[in-house]
Amino acid sequence: MANSKYEYVKQYELDDSLLPGCWIVVRIDGKGFTKFSELHGFEKPNDKRALDLMDECAKEVLNEFPDVRLAYGESDEYSFVLGRSTDMYGRRASKIVSLLVSCFTANYVAKWAAFLPDTPLRSTPMFDGRAVCYPLDSNLRDYLSWRQADTHINNQYNTCFWALVKSGKTPTEAQATLRGTQTAQKNELLFNEFGINYAHLPEQFKKGSVVLRRKTMVEVKQRADGTPVLRERNLPTVLHTDIIRDEFWNEHPQLMAP
Amino acid sequence: MANSKYEYVKQYELDDSLLPGCWIVVRIDGKGFTKFSELHGFEKPNDKRALDLMDECAKEVLNEFPDVRLAYGESDEYSFVLGRSTDMYGRRASKIVSLLVSCFTANYVAKWAAFLPDTPLRSTPMFDGRAVCYPLDSNLRDYLSWRQADTHINNQYNTCFWALVKSGKTPTEAQATLRGTQTAQKNELLFNEFGINYAHLPEQFKKGSVVLRRKTMVEVKQRADGTPVLRERNLPTVLHTDIIRDEFWNEHPQLMAP
Amino acid sequence: MANSKYEYVKQYELDDSLLPGCWIVVRIDGKGFTKFSELHGFEKPNDKRALDLMDECAKEVLNEFPDVRLAYGESDEYSFVLGRSTDMYGRRASKIVSLLVSCFTANYVAKWAAFLPDTPLRSTPMFDGRAVCYPLDSNLRDYLSWRQADTHINNQYNTCFWALVKSGKTPTEAQATLRGTQTAQKNELLFNEFGINYAHLPEQFKKGSVVLRRKTMVEVKQRADGTPVLRERNLPTVLHTDIIRDEFWNEHPQLMAP
Amino acid sequence: MANSKYEYVKQYELDDSLLPGCWIVVRIDGKGFTKFSELHGFEKPNDKRALDLMDECAKEVLNEFPDVRLAYGESDEYSFVLGRSTDMYGRRASKIVSLLVSCFTANYVAKWAAFLPDTPLRSTPMFDGRAVCYPLDSNLRDYLSWRQADTHINNQYNTCFWALVKSGKTPTEAQATLRGTQTAQKNELLFNEFGINYAHLPEQFKKGSVVLRRKTMVEVKQRADGTPVLRERNLPTVLHTDIIRDEFWNEHPQLMAP
Repeated sequence: MANSKYEYVKQYELDDSLLPGCWIVVRIDGKGFTKFSELHGFEKPNDKRALDLMDECAKEVLNEFPDVRLAYGESDEYSFVLGRSTDMYGRRASKIVSLLVSCFTANYVAKWAAFLPDTPLRSTPMFDGRAVCYPLDSNLRDYLSWRQADTHINNQYNTCFWALVKSGKTPTEAQATLRGTQTAQKNELLFNEFGINYAHLPEQFKKGSVVLRRKTMVEVKQRADGTPVLRERNLPTVLHTDIIRDEFWNEHPQLMAP
Repeated sequence: MANSKYEYVKQYELDDSLLPGCWIVVRIDGKGFTKFSELHGFEKPNDKRALDLMDECAKEVLNEFPDVRLAYGESDEYSFVLGRSTDMYGRRASKIVSLLVSCFTANYVAKWAAFLPDTPLRSTPMFDGRAVCYPLDSNLRDYLSWRQADTHINNQYNTCFWALVKSGKTPTEAQATLRGTQTAQKNELLFNEFGINYAHLPEQFKKGSVVLRRKTMVEVKQRADGTPVLRERNLPTVLHTDIIRDEFWNEHPQLMAP
Repeated sequence: MANSKYEYVKQYELDDSLLPGCWIVVRIDGKGFTKFSELHGFEKPNDKRALDLMDECAKEVLNEFPDVRLAYGESDEYSFVLGRSTDMYGRRASKIVSLLVSCFTANYVAKWAAFLPDTPLRSTPMFDGRAVCYPLDSNLRDYLSWRQADTHINNQYNTCFWALVKSGKTPTEAQATLRGTQTAQKNELLFNEFGINYAHLPEQFKKGSVVLRRKTMVEVKQRADGTPVLRERNLPTVLHTDIIRDEFWNEHPQLMAP
Repeated sequence: MANSKYEYVKQYELDDSLLPGCWIVVRIDGKGFTKFSELHGFEKPNDKRALDLMDECAKEVLNEFPDVRLAYGESDEYSFVLGRSTDMYGRRASKIVSLLVSCFTANYVAKWAAFLPDTPLRSTPMFDGRAVCYPLDSNLRDYLSWRQADTHINNQYNTCFWALVKSGKTPTEAQATLRGTQTAQKNELLFNEFGINYAHLPEQFKKGSVVLRRKTMVEVKQRADGTPVLRERNLPTVLHTDIIRDEFWNEHPQLMAP
């Protein structure tokens, strides 16, 4: 049963390296999460427990892969940013994408019970992933702005939609009510009809989640007398903040550093 | 916060469709499983519980994705075969690979406790994946033969290696003993020194695992009197059998059907 | 002016190898040949001189590249077939495509005057090219059948169209006359209105051109007495024959050989 | 002979679009030009007629393709630069590469006699081509610097080598003499042994050729009295100048413009 006569099949593995020098964004996306969220009774329009679980998984991706320097998530999707000069797995697309997806999924299942303790996992959560290259810093900024603007648009729409549905409208009626409305009109609807001030909703819902490494004091051991020994560590941290405006980027210059 | 000015970034997503008309093989592979298996005290050279868990995950992949018609696994890797004419996700490589990896990983974590009930999961199991295209039926056969021959070679070596180590040799000494030995010599070593008849080892260790759909009678409900109602279902089934010789393929002609 | 600090740019050249084991077809196509053929007064619907020039260039491609085993051409396009197992330039797509295009173009210009002696070349003839992989023999057959069926359809239409235009109709009227007509109707039109029996048109127009290597006796030198010394050589030869039916392939089994 | 049953083969043409937003460089390279230049008696180390022909072909590429904004050539190679935002042929690699190669080759043959009037073309000149993407302006600068530094290094070496060979050394002896020598030593050798001041050699040999569009007054017609009517046109122009230092880029800001 010598193996040598079959080994030629290895040559059929084609190179799928991503262009050097570009930002790499890996976006992962829940498969069939509309159904998944119904099956597990996720609160609408946002289930804080499920979002916290997503954020926790993203933190674990940053813990696992030092080359991932930033992540941004909303709803059932998350984008991970690798630096221009990363040579992680020789920049092979399938290797990078599959490992990030696998890490995220494993944590999603493993930590589910901690975040939704009263809800048994009744189906298999799955995420697809893809890698995209961006040549310019401005492209990366625009990509992230695209996702965060999307978060806002979706969240505002969904907040209105579910308020209408919970007040007794059918989904079809709710859609008809919202068709063609602008931001200002949606905010008025929320305030006038449901007493909801959109500006007061949780930042996590309105802005999504940013994960980056931040200097954090952590207890590394205890002295004999029981007092903690603290060390500064660069740990993944979740923020719910605007990443479209320059302030965020000025505050975290390391994100865009070469 | 209109989204339109950012949407150009979508154009940077390049097409990664796999060539039509070819067999698609997605091979997934455990990341750092040498360390992972030590951390969780896997039995050497083979841990049946861990292999059964792998097989169960592969079955779930076939349950989830009807276009996966065959799988073959050994150790911490599994190969999934999609038919020539599959149009699953438009044959996009990253979509297919990431979803199969995600499905496998999710099940690995979710079912861990059922297969290794006494071993808490202490780190994140991760799998990478890649897709390879094979134009000819003979290429696919050779690919699978390559993996199964590899299973045999590795298992025989590892069986000897761990027998030597368990008998008191250091890993370096064990390697030195085995260097350059042929199949027959390894079998003699096992028999003469350790009383192990290689031929009597479990087929799962020697042949790896094949997963395919097979007509199976399953209970779909019970009658009023408590007797079960059976229906034939085409269910993923695990076999430990030779897939190099023609017999297997003659027995399962649907595997190679267009 | 040391070069080393710039050499990193070489890493940006990504691999574009074509899948091993597949047939490779390189199709080249004239750029703007409608205009080019008007500018040079090509006869309509077919200019035999221009077609002969195309055929000659294809022969030179086979002379230059032994891995090209077959070519098929019509109008201003030509398809070149490389065998499944070719390793020409490591199967790199851009290398193969660019060299075939370059060889064809160079000959087109160099031999123009020999084929159209009374027509000075007044603009730059250019051809684009692309490589496509086909996994199965039947795919290759279907590809070539696709092109030859296209030749027939185009030629029949164009023969009618130009007969109508030459008889005094405007192009718009000619198009209107032909709209929705079937093969039989077009043949009747040609015969009844213009006395043209489509079946009697030159095979080159109806079937296009096939180029393959054929054993041919060629004079390699002369004896002292002036008699020629002949040797059998395997030379590119042009045929105008049906390549859709099996006869052609049965006659030339080497074309499909591994 | 309906075509529809064969048309599925079109789906096998995979997308090969180049990443948006990047500089595209297409480098073409003579095939077997060592032999080609011997066959046609090119002067060594540089044949001005052959270099002028290359430059002329590059100008024609810029004439034909407005999206090519810059070219740089040396010896038997030329690099063409397309702007970041070009959408020429949807950025399809094979289309762009093959057409540039075809345009260059066609002109090489068509204009051969004008540049080497006493040398009949005795074999087929061919060029291969490839496309490379560069994300940053600095990458493009480095690419071009890489080529121009290469020109210098090669030219200096070849000038020495051929001076030695013409003075009676064998090629092997000439190579041995030059092995390990630095720039300064080569210049001294040229000056001391052959009276050649490297600095006085033609810029075309030392710097290669840059092609860019420049505002040029051209005669568009003549008045009745025979005086010419001039108009400003943006015409491809050849320069032999340093493109490594900033001066060139400051002088031609349009080259790096978005």
